Amino acid sequence: MSDIDILVSEVGPRDGLQSIRTIMPTAAKIAWIDAEAAAGVREIEVASFVPPKLLPQMADAAEIVAHAKTIPNLAVIALVPNFKGAENAIRAGADKLGLPLSCSETHSQANLKMTHNQVIDEVRKIRALIDTLPAAERPGFEGSLSTAFGCTLEGKVPEGQVVRLAARLVEAGVDELSLSDTTGYANPNQLRRLIKLVRAEVGADKLAGVHLHNTRGLGLANVVAALEEGITTVDSSLGGIGGCPFAPGASGNIVTEDLVFMLDSMGLKTGIDLEQLLTVRNTVLAALPDEEMYGFTPDAGLPKGYAGGGWGLGA
Amino acid sequence: MSDIDILVSEVGPRDGLQSIRTIMPTAAKIAWIDAEAAAGVREIEVASFVPPKLLPQMADAAEIVAHAKTIPNLAVIALVPNFKGAENAIRAGADKLGLPLSCSETHSQANLKMTHNQVIDEVRKIRALIDTLPAAERPGFEGSLSTAFGCTLEGKVPEGQVVRLAARLVEAGVDELSLSDTTGYANPNQLRRLIKLVRAEVGADKLAGVHLHNTRGLGLANVVAALEEGITTVDSSLGGIGGCPFAPGASGNIVTEDLVFMLDSMGLKTGIDLEQLLTVRNTVLAALPDEEMYGFTPDAGLPKGYAGGGWGLGA
Repeated sequence: MSDIDILVSEVGPRDGLQSIRTIMPTAAKIAWIDAEAAAGVREIEVASFVPPKLLPQMADAAEIVAHAKTIPNLAVIALVPNFKGAENAIRAGADKLGLPLSCSETHSQANLKMTHNQVIDEVRKIRALIDTLPAAERPGFEGSLSTAFGCTLEGKVPEGQVVRLAARLVEAGVDELSLSDTTGYANPNQLRRLIKLVRAEVGADKLAGVHLHNTRGLGLANVVAALEEGITTVDSSLGGIGGCPFAPGASGNIVTEDLVFMLDSMGLKTGIDLEQLLTVRNTVLAALPDEEMYGFTPDAGLPKGYAGGGWGLGA
Repeated sequence: MSDIDILVSEVGPRDGLQSIRTIMPTAAKIAWIDAEAAAGVREIEVASFVPPKLLPQMADAAEIVAHAKTIPNLAVIALVPNFKGAENAIRAGADKLGLPLSCSETHSQANLKMTHNQVIDEVRKIRALIDTLPAAERPGFEGSLSTAFGCTLEGKVPEGQVVRLAARLVEAGVDELSLSDTTGYANPNQLRRLIKLVRAEVGADKLAGVHLHNTRGLGLANVVAALEEGITTVDSSLGGIGGCPFAPGASGNIVTEDLVFMLDSMGLKTGIDLEQLLTVRNTVLAALPDEEMYGFTPDAGLPKGYAGGGWGLGA
């Protein structure tokens, strides 16, 4: 990613769609993924390998991954809740597996139906499975520290617990970590501090990404704090679709359109054509006419005379 | 303000109400101002001294200022577009006069019907008027550099122009300056840079405040950047009411509720009781049932177990 400064990782087709009632047809998912990749998005979390009876929205996960893999220059991420999901995601050809570990054990049991120890055991088994593959075929493996900034069930999550779980995930075999504000509780100072603490424990190179929500309007404010700490991957969802179905009131991923406008106007290269990205919303809206979409830039439009790339700076 | 870190300056009763069609009854304005002051808000821009035929929403400006002045520990700001407005605001007893100078001359002519030179002449006359008062009765005088980050009419506004106008305002006699993103064009890097440039020209002590909009969702992200530059006064509007009637599409002040949640959760003292502030919305909604109100924290509620003051930090 040497030609970009920040990797915007679109999570809408997974995180967004799993949170809403509508089941998006496979063809519509493919149209969405194609349109975002065509706008220059380099990484998309396209599906979740969970049992279809739990999340019928994701029943076509293998088909979606297989299609996404045909798109040049696109990193295809699949969420896997356990070893079984990882087997299926690897078989489908995902470039990277993402496994969420809820730092709140109550949330872990509600979300994945596993204790922390059980999740760590799954991580070890997945690592072992990946290592049986020829080196060139091994997917990346990311552990996501979810509810890292607080939990709708437990309330405050001690920082020490997040740091210990980060260390356990790395020890059990993930390649990298991300910090996830599943509940929209994070504030910029908390985010800066937790990034520093986790990096001090596992090494800066192990923590590249953040997954933030806009539940209380602080999503992009938290991104600014994360950028200052040197974070280079930021998750977001087109139209802010999604959240976590097991965290009540936790709707609202940060909005890809607003995020890309912010980064682009700051002069940070994302590889994404902002004007083209703004048209993708129409593709998604056509397939989800009854779902609420968020974001301000799509309504307000770009500034008059907007030229991107550090717009507004200089004489 | 030694007992607080950041002064949240509520602009809703002026900036908010002048932008909407509804004319709020005087009693409802007073209830709003009383409720916010009771929640701990220390500074409110309560009215604009413009001709009632231009802004009938502000016809009761003198009465509102007179009432607000009876509230202990509240700094009462009045917007004045010109010398005549300043005379009336001083007569009403305002603690501080705020005069907007649009950095875009096109916007200045649309908004104040004056060129830059004409506005600067008004500033000189207002300064002279203030100086005729006994020292103890002199109101503060702030010049607001509006459209500093771009203009819906002109597009990009050169930074050099903003810096020159900042110097001219100080030379003509304002006590302090604020930078205003009237159009919601600002990004965090642009804001940091312009704060540095203006301070380098006029001195850091002359620029304490920012007025930001959330038109493209970047409002609080810009606040984070401003805080890092040492800005200590941030304008906002309860429910995000308002914007600028002469800047099409520029609706959306940053939302007081979300701002105070962010500052409070970061451990920055504002003097405001967040839970009490969240109840003020009901007072305003009762008087403005047909107006759209913004903000995420009022809908999402506070985090479970929220304890304020750097919540989430530490073990």
